[in-house]
Amino acid sequence: MPTFKLTILGSNSALPAYGRFPTAQVLNVNEHLYLLDCGEGTQMNLSKYEIRRSKIRHIFISHLHGDHFFGLVGLLTSYSLLGREHKLTIFCPEGLKEIIDIQTNASSGGLGYEVEFQIIDPNEYLTIFENEDLEVTTIPMDHSIPCCGFLFREKPHKQKILKEKIAEYNIDFENIRAIKSGADFKTNSGAIIPNEELTLPAPKSRSYAYCSDTAYTESIIPIIENVDLLYHEATFLDESKEIAAQKKHTTTKEAANIALKAKVQELLIGHFSARYKELDIFLTEAKEVFENTQLATEGSIFEVNN
Amino acid sequence: MPTFKLTILGSNSALPAYGRFPTAQVLNVNEHLYLLDCGEGTQMNLSKYEIRRSKIRHIFISHLHGDHFFGLVGLLTSYSLLGREHKLTIFCPEGLKEIIDIQTNASSGGLGYEVEFQIIDPNEYLTIFENEDLEVTTIPMDHSIPCCGFLFREKPHKQKILKEKIAEYNIDFENIRAIKSGADFKTNSGAIIPNEELTLPAPKSRSYAYCSDTAYTESIIPIIENVDLLYHEATFLDESKEIAAQKKHTTTKEAANIALKAKVQELLIGHFSARYKELDIFLTEAKEVFENTQLATEGSIFEVNN
Repeated sequence: MPTFKLTILGSNSALPAYGRFPTAQVLNVNEHLYLLDCGEGTQMNLSKYEIRRSKIRHIFISHLHGDHFFGLVGLLTSYSLLGREHKLTIFCPEGLKEIIDIQTNASSGGLGYEVEFQIIDPNEYLTIFENEDLEVTTIPMDHSIPCCGFLFREKPHKQKILKEKIAEYNIDFENIRAIKSGADFKTNSGAIIPNEELTLPAPKSRSYAYCSDTAYTESIIPIIENVDLLYHEATFLDESKEIAAQKKHTTTKEAANIALKAKVQELLIGHFSARYKELDIFLTEAKEVFENTQLATEGSIFEVNN
Repeated sequence: MPTFKLTILGSNSALPAYGRFPTAQVLNVNEHLYLLDCGEGTQMNLSKYEIRRSKIRHIFISHLHGDHFFGLVGLLTSYSLLGREHKLTIFCPEGLKEIIDIQTNASSGGLGYEVEFQIIDPNEYLTIFENEDLEVTTIPMDHSIPCCGFLFREKPHKQKILKEKIAEYNIDFENIRAIKSGADFKTNSGAIIPNEELTLPAPKSRSYAYCSDTAYTESIIPIIENVDLLYHEATFLDESKEIAAQKKHTTTKEAANIALKAKVQELLIGHFSARYKELDIFLTEAKEVFENTQLATEGSIFEVNN
């Protein structure tokens, strides 16, 4: 099965603390790497967790709070120093291109490879990217500045044809293709062999929803319903519900409540406030509402199998 | 004696590698902290090495290559989140203010405390700052973009009067002040007691020269002559002399040669190229020319005593 694996590079909210870094994650889908947000220190953590940065072709920036993009200019500059040739596409809200340009122009007179900034509207639910493996859609968040999450959903896999059936019925290449796409098979003698006798069911399409900074909002539930893996920020503990609402962030129990209502398989929580040194209580609180929860801490890896 | 202590936060050149961070150092003079350059990750390393960032009131940026300033916006933003009230002064070349402003405006609508950018001319040898403890002058470097180092020199200390002499001659407060400034003392009987009999010599003024990115240039020698501590970049090993010259950087032996010719007490080398994993050979090569050399690696502390 193709890889579907998430690595956490940064777990903290705005103020780095206790060795925790600001937000960044890498999703590996079929050995294509997608970088989600890029807080300060992302390039160091890519090295630390042995992720091949050259494999990243697409970067998704949820919003322009510094803890989600201050590491981008360093990463882009390092690519240039390393002689990158591949184009890089950055999906981001308006304004980031100017921020990068002013710095790279001052620092190095620009970058030596193509960078395309694809401006997204964080308030809309839209498909912004697709390739042979997957489709990415925006998930509008409720935050203090325009902000969106991203939903990664694999494209439907093809059915697998049973090798012994190819031999048994002497099926030619053209018919194999048709059967993989769902067709029945007609033998030389005119008998119809139903598709389900010839194939294994297609592996299911996997999905990951990245819900970056947001207040508690049930408006995202229809978008993220039934995903395999949900990352939802949980900046505060339950006791700080009012502060969370005021700062347009979420608590442990609220994040878990979203996971429950959206019937997801597994919940990851992160974006922890610097006021908390220990994180155990985050897990305990979230698990009270949604059992299959884990902490999205630096270096953790979460794989989704079919 | 007042503190005079340097802590290294980043030792690497442009491309972070092997856990080495881009350039940043903190000089503590009499418990005032001065930050020298601010590469990506500086704020994390301030925490890691337990340096009280709130004590920093002055930041000196040598030039606008990213590995010397990409960490600044994160540090400034964190100060804002921590509710900083004290003014911060940043000495830097033209262009940095705009780079910081565009980012803090997008991210947080500005900073909640006063930041003054004092534009320096990196090509001039000038005193840019002084207070009761010290004087800071620029050291023009020979680099691919305008760049300067900084010389920190303590102001002359006063002589210490010997307590037993105060008692012996019953010296009053006004005369004590005069003696500390170098005067002799006239007793009631009219005898002249020479100053050197009444005092201990003043502790000598200590000095630190920070020579950030530069090609080998002897033009800096008259400025840094006899300093107690010299940091001089040594991006490359001796074998890469031509590459160093081409990229306007320095080798181990060249840095050591500057230390030798400038008759400094101690040499620190840093800004190591990412092409080198091991650093022992840097030290060996430099010591062949100037014995009292040390590697300026992350977390190292160098104190200067009187």
